[in-house]
Formats: sequence, structure tokens, C-alpha cells
Amino acid sequence: MSKKLTKRSEDYSKWYNELVTRADLAENSAVRGCMVIKPYGYAIWEKMQAELDSKFKETGHQNAYFPLFVPKNLFEAEEKNAEGFAKECAVVTHYRLKNNPEEKGKLMVDPEAKLEEELVVRPTSEAIIWSTYKNWIQSYRDLPILINQWANVVRWEMRTRLFLRTAEFLWQEGHTAHATRQEALDETILINDIYANFVENFMAIPVIKGVKSESERFAGAEQTHCIEALMQDGKALQAGTSHFLGQNFAKAFDVKFANKEGKLEHVWASSWGVSTRLMGALIMTHSDDNGLVLPPNLAPIQVIIVPIYKGEEQFSAISEVAQEIKQQLVDAGVSVKFDDRDNVKPGYKFNDYELKGVPLRIAIGPKDLEKDQVELARRDTLSKSFISKDSVAVVIPSLLKEIQETLYTKATNYRDEHISEVNDFESFKEILNSKGGFISAHWDGTAKSEEAIKKATKATIRCIPNNTKPEDGVCVFSGNPSKQRVLFAKAY
Amino acid sequence: MSKKLTKRSEDYSKWYNELVTRADLAENSAVRGCMVIKPYGYAIWEKMQAELDSKFKETGHQNAYFPLFVPKNLFEAEEKNAEGFAKECAVVTHYRLKNNPEEKGKLMVDPEAKLEEELVVRPTSEAIIWSTYKNWIQSYRDLPILINQWANVVRWEMRTRLFLRTAEFLWQEGHTAHATRQEALDETILINDIYANFVENFMAIPVIKGVKSESERFAGAEQTHCIEALMQDGKALQAGTSHFLGQNFAKAFDVKFANKEGKLEHVWASSWGVSTRLMGALIMTHSDDNGLVLPPNLAPIQVIIVPIYKGEEQFSAISEVAQEIKQQLVDAGVSVKFDDRDNVKPGYKFNDYELKGVPLRIAIGPKDLEKDQVELARRDTLSKSFISKDSVAVVIPSLLKEIQETLYTKATNYRDEHISEVNDFESFKEILNSKGGFISAHWDGTAKSEEAIKKATKATIRCIPNNTKPEDGVCVFSGNPSKQRVLFAKAY
Repeated sequence: MSKKLTKRSEDYSKWYNELVTRADLAENSAVRGCMVIKPYGYAIWEKMQAELDSKFKETGHQNAYFPLFVPKNLFEAEEKNAEGFAKECAVVTHYRLKNNPEEKGKLMVDPEAKLEEELVVRPTSEAIIWSTYKNWIQSYRDLPILINQWANVVRWEMRTRLFLRTAEFLWQEGHTAHATRQEALDETILINDIYANFVENFMAIPVIKGVKSESERFAGAEQTHCIEALMQDGKALQAGTSHFLGQNFAKAFDVKFANKEGKLEHVWASSWGVSTRLMGALIMTHSDDNGLVLPPNLAPIQVIIVPIYKGEEQFSAISEVAQEIKQQLVDAGVSVKFDDRDNVKPGYKFNDYELKGVPLRIAIGPKDLEKDQVELARRDTLSKSFISKDSVAVVIPSLLKEIQETLYTKATNYRDEHISEVNDFESFKEILNSKGGFISAHWDGTAKSEEAIKKATKATIRCIPNNTKPEDGVCVFSGNPSKQRVLFAKAY
Repeated sequence: MSKKLTKRSEDYSKWYNELVTRADLAENSAVRGCMVIKPYGYAIWEKMQAELDSKFKETGHQNAYFPLFVPKNLFEAEEKNAEGFAKECAVVTHYRLKNNPEEKGKLMVDPEAKLEEELVVRPTSEAIIWSTYKNWIQSYRDLPILINQWANVVRWEMRTRLFLRTAEFLWQEGHTAHATRQEALDETILINDIYANFVENFMAIPVIKGVKSESERFAGAEQTHCIEALMQDGKALQAGTSHFLGQNFAKAFDVKFANKEGKLEHVWASSWGVSTRLMGALIMTHSDDNGLVLPPNLAPIQVIIVPIYKGEEQFSAISEVAQEIKQQLVDAGVSVKFDDRDNVKPGYKFNDYELKGVPLRIAIGPKDLEKDQVELARRDTLSKSFISKDSVAVVIPSLLKEIQETLYTKATNYRDEHISEVNDFESFKEILNSKGGFISAHWDGTAKSEEAIKKATKATIRCIPNNTKPEDGVCVFSGNPSKQRVLFAKAY
């Protein structure tokens, strides 16, 4: 605890890794690229889950559960999707271990227990789900199907980072089936809007809604809608995606329905997901050199109460007040903890809760008792003030709201200051490397220019923003005509 | 819908399979032994999860998440555990597919992408978790660790049945670490009690608490506590287990802590779990030849309202009353649906909701409107009555409570009538085959007799019940002395 975190300005990446492990959010495991999500980190994820789940249900979605494994022949059915994920998937080939005759106490794969057909550990579930929907859909009356699944998925990433890119991660994946193209498109956009509202209002992270360029699309999609956030180091992070799949999966799995006229048509589809990656976005949007900063909506502990005392008598008097305040806060719907441990000092506790991003800290010492006050410290601004003991239950709930809004405003200001309109490639490169952030530039719409820009700068098209006005211009790279600006950035 | 379910008396197993699929609970998938849990079935599972999760949290447990994969060398560390699961585990050997050069559009395992060390898909997580705890535990101050995980696990069962035995299933698994043997034992029993209370009070399934004989214990445990339920066909079903692991995993993974005196000791452990298997117990405890019967606590829809009408005018008048009643019920905390579909007849709806186990059905026809009444049908007793429209919001909540209790009482009576005290092996066999159920008999405590009885009758020792009084007797099989009766049964 004594050691300070690496400063963001020194080494942003190191700061991130240290913060994640020292704030008890997650750690690397004995399995390459797979993480352990620790209780404190998982409690934050549970809050995200609960909120998102209620939004899905409010809009008519139901949860279900589909198999972890995808037989290889189903996996390869939708060609683009298969191609997109084949290079990074875990494959189950055997169903038994046996004793190793050459090494006592050791096990080996039993060659007799080879599967006839290999099983892919799902990197995403379109294939297994559409092979199931085939049996569920006969008529337009069976549509729409609006299903979501909370699950683990595996993508064999070579370079992994806690939360941001891990071989196994947790997510939700929605898979919907519709009678018309328009309905599936509407669903795709509805969900992208739900994601945007959730990430902005609940996580206090501003996002830009838009669509992906063809080369950045989900493998197998006709359109990928997305929300893009900006991290403090000027790199973008894709926070959620919602795909319009057209009839691709319906065709790959031969899923047809009889329309009202009795004619057979292929079904239209969407799929969409957000993952534990959002934890990375959360951390990198709000936190500072002292550790995690949590928006009150997501904080497992919103208020920590720390007693400052010498001797049993003081402790007992302070505890009484602390318990009283705690109860008032609980009654006001605030999540609060009284840390009465006697084996660590207040300073240690202060640092620890700062590191863990608890939004508000109340400290109570003997002088405060005399003055009927408590010391209140805000995690986001690191400012302190004294408030009357009797006003706690009134002040704190509104202060938590204020902190939530302040964090959002701060992040929005940062983001807005880091969108640069650029009209030539030299400035593009210069600004990307000096200031970072989003670069709003004209692009000729070709994969060739996109690829060349990426190669030259490592910047990708994050999205074609929904709110961009058409504007005639010339491509920042090729000089060819362009109809609108798109957003480039280096990205996680 | 028109076809009736197979009767339980004709073919219990067929009845079960038909019910599970036709009530939209689950179905087999394209992956051998893996099921799809459909939205209606998953909604029931979610209710179980929410209730159990709150009970775990109330008793100081936190959720976390550990990797899906267990490297083979960790898997084999605790020898008995490894031996118990090695024969039925899915093994990941490769991390990439590539295009099959011999068959266009097909993929094959890339031999270049062979893992140096194979990964076992977790059949249970003791190994991966204890290899993690090793780094979390130094001192007695780090203890206890009280962690639960909601996850999927894979056991390569050869004969699978929806919910009861599937290659992949969903469960929660708790893994706790303690400074003393007594603490770990207390935890083991606390959890078994939580399971018993949950299954009895929430699922309306009576259970017998007890401990397993040595040969029925969890691989790697020193004691396995369990709750055993009895199905309508006279077979027992293990509904939950809580294991006292002693120091076995701490020794296998070298997990030690410094006690208050600064001396290093191995940590004590428990682990415990319930799974989607509980869905099977739920179905087989309460349901009948018309389909599922759900205790109101678990019913996604507690009350269904069906209008009976001819023509638009009647429909509109009935709808108005239905909506009014619906709102009253929602306000009373009841989960209610008004089925106003016009493309299926009331009789179809009646059958459908009966099949799905909706506890109460309200039917409203034109005559009911005249009389200011509604027809109320109970799913559990299939009885009907008329109640005044204005009393609905008062009658129904208390009736739901009554149904919950009635189901529990009915199941308890059935169970109690199916515990037979038996003193000789001929009666043992005779009663097992004619009446079924639990057989309470003396056993000499040896694995030899236990095995011989199993071989001769297919009955296993379900548990040594906690509430059995010591009683001198002779083993029903060997004639050797015995100190108490244990419960035998054929089991799922």
C-alpha cells in the first residue's frame, strides 16, 4: 500500500496495469491470457449487468442460454464469420484424460478419446444460435425473437491486457430474428442507443455513436453500429457494438419463415454485445494518479466512514456517531461501510479507499465530535470540507448525484477538446502524435485509403458518426472527393 | 399443442422429456449432451439465482470470476480430484483453425497451433481457484475468503438428460478458505442449511439433510454434506452438496498462512454448489400429466388472464376489466399477463398455460361481466371457482401463498410415505422395486457392503441423515453390527 502508483504521465500503460491489480479489480491467472475478476471488480461488473439487463427486459428482450461449444461444421457455415474468428479460437479435440504410464501422478490426453468432430469454444454465438433458431422459426408469427445471453467467450488473443483484451471474457450477446429488414435495422439502432445511454448516464462516459467502415465491421455483418469512447491517453475505445446481420446467417443456416402471404423468406437478424472491456473504459476514463475514480452509480461502496481516535473511549464515542450516520445513509439508499479495523491506521485506510475509488469519505475524529461535524472528502476532486453531522443524510445523496454529473462533464470536456478537424495529412499525423484523440477528417470511402492511413499512422476509422452533416471535401490521404468527415484515432 | 403429454404412469422418463421441451424449458442442441435453456426455463433459473445470490451475500459471501480453463498440471495437482474428473473432461489442445486445403470452405485444426500444455475445460474450479488463493493468502488476517462464482462447467457425461445430466451445465460454486478446521466445517454446514432452506421454502421441495458415505463423496473432499429430494417416480435426486475439503487443496497447492503466533499452517477449505439440475428436481417434484406445476415463488407468470369473447364489442368490454384487474395485481406485487392474442382460441391458451405451469388462471367471459365475477382456476389442484371481480387483488396474493404451501405439503407427504424402514435384504429389494422411495436400513459402514447392495439393487446410500438417532442393529446386507440407519434409494 505504501508504494505510489506509477504516474499516468510517466507510463500510462504501467499505471493502468498497476491500478487494476492494486485496486483489487482483476489479476492475471495461471492460464495464459485469462484473468481472475476479483470480488471488488466483479461487484462493479454486477452493477453494470443489473442495469443493462433491466434495459434489455424493458424493451422486450428475454435471457436464454446456448452451448459453450460450436461444432466445427456449424462454425464454418457463415463463411465471413468463420474466417474472422478461425485464427483465434480454442479447439476441444478430446473428451478424456488418462494416467500417463510414463510418469506416475501425471495425466495425459487419452488418444482413444478423440472427438469425431472438433468443438470450437464459442468466440461469439451466432452460429450455434442460428442453427437453433432454424427449428424455432416457421411463420411470421414466430417473429421477432429477441434473446440475450450472459456468457463467457474465448478468443485466443496473442497480446492480452486485463479487461481490455483477454482470451476469455464475460459479455452479453443479443441475437434477434425479424421478419423485415427494417425491423432488424431498427433493433440494431435501438440497442446501440441503449448502450449509449447506459454508458453515458450510468458509467459517466461520453460516447460517439456511429457506424463502422466496411473493414472494421463484425465478421458476417452488413452494418456495425458502435459507440466510441475516448481514454485519457488520447486513444479511443470501442465500448459496444450492434450489428445488422442482414440475411447472412439465415442463409448460412437456411432459416426461412412463411410471411403473411404464405411465401417463404429468409429471416433478418441483428446481434450486439458489450463485455468486461467496459471495465477498462471505466478505469481509463475517470481514474487518476491516486487510483480508481468510480462514478457513484457503479461504486460497490459509495461512502466509507473512517474513525480517527486514540484509545477505547474515543473509539466508542466515534463509533456511536458513525453507526448513526451509517444507518441514516442506508435509509437514504446509499451504500456505506464503516471501517472499524483496529489493525491499520487511518492513513492506510485513506489511501486504500482512494485507490479503490470510493466516491466519498467521511472521517470522524474527537474534535469533530465536539463540533458536531464530520470531515467529508470527495474522491473525484480530492477536496475536503466539514459538514454538520445532522446534514449528512441530506447532503450526501445530492453530492453523489453531483459527482456522477461532474465526472461525466469532465470526461465530455476532455473528449470534446480532443476532437480535431484536420484537412491535410501532415496535420493529421502531427496532431495524432502530439495531442491524440479523435481526428475528424475527410475520407474517400475506399478501403485502400483507410488501409494506407492505418499503415502510416496506426490510426483506424473509429466510426462514421451519426451526427455528422454531409460536407463536400477531399480525402485527407488520397485527395479524392469525399462527402463527409469520419473519425480517426488510435484505439485499444 | 393438441397432442397430450405421455402419462407419467405410462413412461415417466418420456413424460419428463416431453414436458421439458413442450413447456419451452430447454431442448437438446447441435452439440452432443449440451442443452439450450429456452427463455421460459431460463426465467425460472434466474429466479433461483437471484434468491440464492441474496442468501449468499447476506452471509458475507462475494461473487468473483475465475478462468474457464485449467492447465493440465494444475488440474492434476490434487490427485483424488483429478482422478474423479479426468475421465469426463473436455480438453483444449489447439488455439487455431485454418482453411482445409483439400476442401474449399472447410476448416481444420491447425497442427502448428498446438498448445504446449493442454487446457481442461473446468469440470469444477477447486484447482484453478486454489492456485489463485495461494497468492492471496499470507496471514490469518487474509482469512476467511468467502467467494462464490456463477459459471458454466463441463463434464463429459455419456448418457445425458435435459437439466439432470448434461455435458455443460450452469451452476454456482462457492470456494472458501479458513484458518481453522472448525470454521471450515461450520461454513460447510451453514451452506448446506442455506441450500435446504432455499429448496424447501422457495422451491417447495422437501429435502433430507445428511452426509455422504465415503464412496459417494466429492473427489477430494473429507466430508460431503448434501440435501436429497425424492421424485414422483420414487427415485432420489441429490439437490445440492457442500464439501468440507480439509487441507487437501491447501496441501496440493501449498497454501499456507501465518497464524496469530506467526506459525505457518495449511489453510482449511470448503466448496459447495447447486446447478441447473435443480430445474429437473422442480419439474419432477410438482408436475402432473397436464404439464409443469410451478410454485408461485418461481413462476415467471403467476397469473394469466384469458378473455373469452365473440366479436369486437365483447372483447373491448372484457379487455377493460382485464386491464383493471391486471393493474391491481401488479400493484399487489403479482406477476401477471393478459393474453389478448386473437389468433388462438381460449382452449388452446388454457392448455398452453397449464403445460407451462402458470399457478393461477383468470378467465373472463360476457356472463362474468354481467355478474361482476371472474373464473379462477388453480393449476395445482385443477379446481375452478368464481370470485367477485373486486376481490381479486385480495384473494390472489393469499391464494398464491396457499398454493406454495400446498405444493410443499403435498410433496412432503409423498416423500414421508416413501421412507420405508427395512430390516432384511429381501424386503429391501421387494420394497425398492415395488414402492421405491427411500429405504431406511442398517448398514455396517463398509464400502464392501455398500458396493454389493448397489450391484444387487442399483440403490446407493443417498445420505446418512443428520436427524437419525443412533440405534443398534445389524447391516441389512452383511448382518454385521451397525450403529444407525442410513437412507438408500435409486437415484438420478
